Amino acid sequence: MIPSVDPRTGQTAAELDAETTSADLERITAAAAAATRELAELSRSGRAEMLRSMGRSLERHRDDLVAIADRETGLGPVRLGGELTRTRWQLDLFADVLEDGGYLEATIDHAGDTPMGPRPDLRRMLTPLGPVAVFGASNFPFAFSVPGGDTASALAAGCPVVAKVHDAHPLTSVRSQEALAEGARAAGVESDVVSVIYGRRAAGDLVRHPSIRAVGFTGSLSVGRELFDVAGARPTPIPFYGELGALNPVMVCREAARSRGESIGQGLAASFTLGVGQFCTKPGVALIPASSDGDALRDALVGAVEQLPAGVMLSERTRNAFAGGSVALREHPGVQVLAEGGGGKERGWWGTPLLLRADARGLDGPVLDECFGPVLVLVEYGSDDDLLALLARFGPALTGTVHADDADRPVAARILRMLQDSVGRVVWNGYPTGVAVSWAMHHGGPYPATTNPLHTSVGATSIRRWLRPISFQDVPDALLPDELRDRPTGGQLPRRVDGRLLLAD
Amino acid sequence: MIPSVDPRTGQTAAELDAETTSADLERITAAAAAATRELAELSRSGRAEMLRSMGRSLERHRDDLVAIADRETGLGPVRLGGELTRTRWQLDLFADVLEDGGYLEATIDHAGDTPMGPRPDLRRMLTPLGPVAVFGASNFPFAFSVPGGDTASALAAGCPVVAKVHDAHPLTSVRSQEALAEGARAAGVESDVVSVIYGRRAAGDLVRHPSIRAVGFTGSLSVGRELFDVAGARPTPIPFYGELGALNPVMVCREAARSRGESIGQGLAASFTLGVGQFCTKPGVALIPASSDGDALRDALVGAVEQLPAGVMLSERTRNAFAGGSVALREHPGVQVLAEGGGGKERGWWGTPLLLRADARGLDGPVLDECFGPVLVLVEYGSDDDLLALLARFGPALTGTVHADDADRPVAARILRMLQDSVGRVVWNGYPTGVAVSWAMHHGGPYPATTNPLHTSVGATSIRRWLRPISFQDVPDALLPDELRDRPTGGQLPRRVDGRLLLAD
Repeated sequence: MIPSVDPRTGQTAAELDAETTSADLERITAAAAAATRELAELSRSGRAEMLRSMGRSLERHRDDLVAIADRETGLGPVRLGGELTRTRWQLDLFADVLEDGGYLEATIDHAGDTPMGPRPDLRRMLTPLGPVAVFGASNFPFAFSVPGGDTASALAAGCPVVAKVHDAHPLTSVRSQEALAEGARAAGVESDVVSVIYGRRAAGDLVRHPSIRAVGFTGSLSVGRELFDVAGARPTPIPFYGELGALNPVMVCREAARSRGESIGQGLAASFTLGVGQFCTKPGVALIPASSDGDALRDALVGAVEQLPAGVMLSERTRNAFAGGSVALREHPGVQVLAEGGGGKERGWWGTPLLLRADARGLDGPVLDECFGPVLVLVEYGSDDDLLALLARFGPALTGTVHADDADRPVAARILRMLQDSVGRVVWNGYPTGVAVSWAMHHGGPYPATTNPLHTSVGATSIRRWLRPISFQDVPDALLPDELRDRPTGGQLPRRVDGRLLLAD
Repeated sequence: MIPSVDPRTGQTAAELDAETTSADLERITAAAAAATRELAELSRSGRAEMLRSMGRSLERHRDDLVAIADRETGLGPVRLGGELTRTRWQLDLFADVLEDGGYLEATIDHAGDTPMGPRPDLRRMLTPLGPVAVFGASNFPFAFSVPGGDTASALAAGCPVVAKVHDAHPLTSVRSQEALAEGARAAGVESDVVSVIYGRRAAGDLVRHPSIRAVGFTGSLSVGRELFDVAGARPTPIPFYGELGALNPVMVCREAARSRGESIGQGLAASFTLGVGQFCTKPGVALIPASSDGDALRDALVGAVEQLPAGVMLSERTRNAFAGGSVALREHPGVQVLAEGGGGKERGWWGTPLLLRADARGLDGPVLDECFGPVLVLVEYGSDDDLLALLARFGPALTGTVHADDADRPVAARILRMLQDSVGRVVWNGYPTGVAVSWAMHHGGPYPATTNPLHTSVGATSIRRWLRPISFQDVPDALLPDELRDRPTGGQLPRRVDGRLLLAD
């Protein structure tokens, strides 16, 4: 049985189905493979309607879902309510993406002459890969779990989803799947377009299963790399999209520290402790000037952190990993404790905010690795060149943040050039912890931020992960996919025709 | 030393530099990493000019390049001249792609309110990965080798290239690199944007090198899988784009066999022996009706094959692999020899066209694997359901071809649905061996056709392999990449603004 545990008490509140057996897995993956056809036949408009219906179903079950998720994660009803809103918005966004149609990259080259001789009629578009495995994250039980971005984008693409029930929120996972299934049925969909499996062994078998054509994963570097290796070692390797986390450095330039150091200090305190520091975009290190302005920023941070209470963490494993990471940092000879927040309670799994300072000796091992939880390491820099040299020590990340005033522009431009090689998102005079769901969002980055730097796990373009191109050569109009016909019956969409991009209207 | 061998005689005509040493590799990869900056600073228009200049340089060296390639490959000056034209055209196409700018997927979401609260200004585009390793194919010494599609698309993306000199055409590889370098210099480019390395050990070290950010490979399944595994096992895994080859099934429907069986037989004979069968798109198996019309088609094929001469193959290894594969097929109890072409000469490496028939017992092992060279296996089918069941036996492929008349439409539609799940390109009433360089071409497919089904190695969209997304949040206009500014100084380009796709003009 899989326990549903309340992190505020550490007590098991419910128990779920046993592990998925091999026979179950065969049945579930076969049903997913069969569902591919129905998703294709729904066409874009039908899948858009299905996604919106799923969102309405989540809405109908809002109170129940939020209550269960709160009991399993301790994240609180306000945050979880907002997250559910985001999750519904995300389903709606992919309905918009489908109706727009540009994501298909439909391209037509009419037959013609070239310097290499006659060219046939060629028509290219993207087509779904097939069933997809989804491994959600503990820290976003809705938005990055069963009903989250991987599922929404895969279904939009036309790929059925088999999701692993997350150990840290199993009941939320199951109830979410039921709500999505109810929404699909309400839209007239008969197949199992989203199903769930339970347990670690079944998870490995899922990644290895021949019916599974790609994997979306959000979680730790260690588990992500392990499953990435499994996906790559298959007789038929499949794409593995792991969003793993990062150190997310914040660079505070000299003038910014001077003009608004106190405000930056308070902003940093709020950002690194948001959700008890359990964000993959949490700032893990901040580079601040070694100056009286930097001192003022640091003092503001210290003051803010000392006022912060402990928070309940997502699971025993998360709390233990944070505790272990904190000890490794504290005990490092180049690291000094600057401030701590309030202590936790006796029952449950609590994390105390922790602010550290690392000197030159401290810039190795633990300081360069992500520690998931409410800890931030300050590093002071001397010259601008020092700042850039320090930044170069940190690896690729999901985000890189710059605080700069107008007078900081020259060094800020150099920082931006470096970040363009190493991060997925550059944040200017802000904090990295918010990840908007939109057309222009990129949530990704070079390894180890993700296992595939070409793709995003958030935003409209995340649909590209589940699609592959196909070309049709001289195929008669009536046998082409609708979107490649001379006059699509489903309405016009953006297409590139004979090298020229054309809009739908 | 690396020998340059004439396959018509098996004699060594020249010898090249020794293997690239570790020290050389460090120097070469460091120079490539340094070249990334210059390619970025050139901007799209500068890189377009560089690519066109490279094409002009290839043109200036045409006679020399074709003569050397002919001596190393035996492909003949007419074919090689055409291939060089194609290679130049390909460089020009990527110049067009750069000038168009749509490949950058530039996207702007202005700040605004959402159901989740205010959203910052977000701007997304694609940015180069960094230096790329290229492993060309033996069978296209220009178009899929040092000056070929991988190099052209990577340079267009802004990624310097380190190419491995191919053992089967080393001097062609070196002279091609020199011509590209001359073209780059003529365009004012100072860095080593294309360099070459020699030898098998250096090749593995190149894939493992931290400066290399992605690999383009065209070649065999065995070598491709080996290097794919190396790329995936790195501490920092990198994308590996292997284009490996396929069986490329051809389905001849009943009415098509009746109305033009003889012509299809002759077309198939020409297609499977084109370039001595050394195409990754060579049709390896044809499904024909078990009927008098199928017999007529087969007789036409037999007649055509018996008239065909032997051809010189690319290398001793290619010839030996073909000879070994042919023996395995011939000796299979379910396989029967229908026809053979003329024999080869005593000197040099010759391949004789071979036409086989497989019965139900024959549909395993060797018949289901690609045999690189001039061999085609015919399989006869009874009912339409038989035809579809046979097709299901063959794995994914680069191409799938259907010959069908109007009366065949119902079964052809079913074949097309199956092919949409398993091939990269569907060919209608044609032959798969021509791969046009254009916007709508897709040259790829599910594994084992390629190691990454999401991408193509031919056509305008192959540039996507070398680019990753990056988002900028609230970054001031002057610090953004030009293409994301409100008014790009390099001219307008297609962008998606607040969810709406807008054209350049």
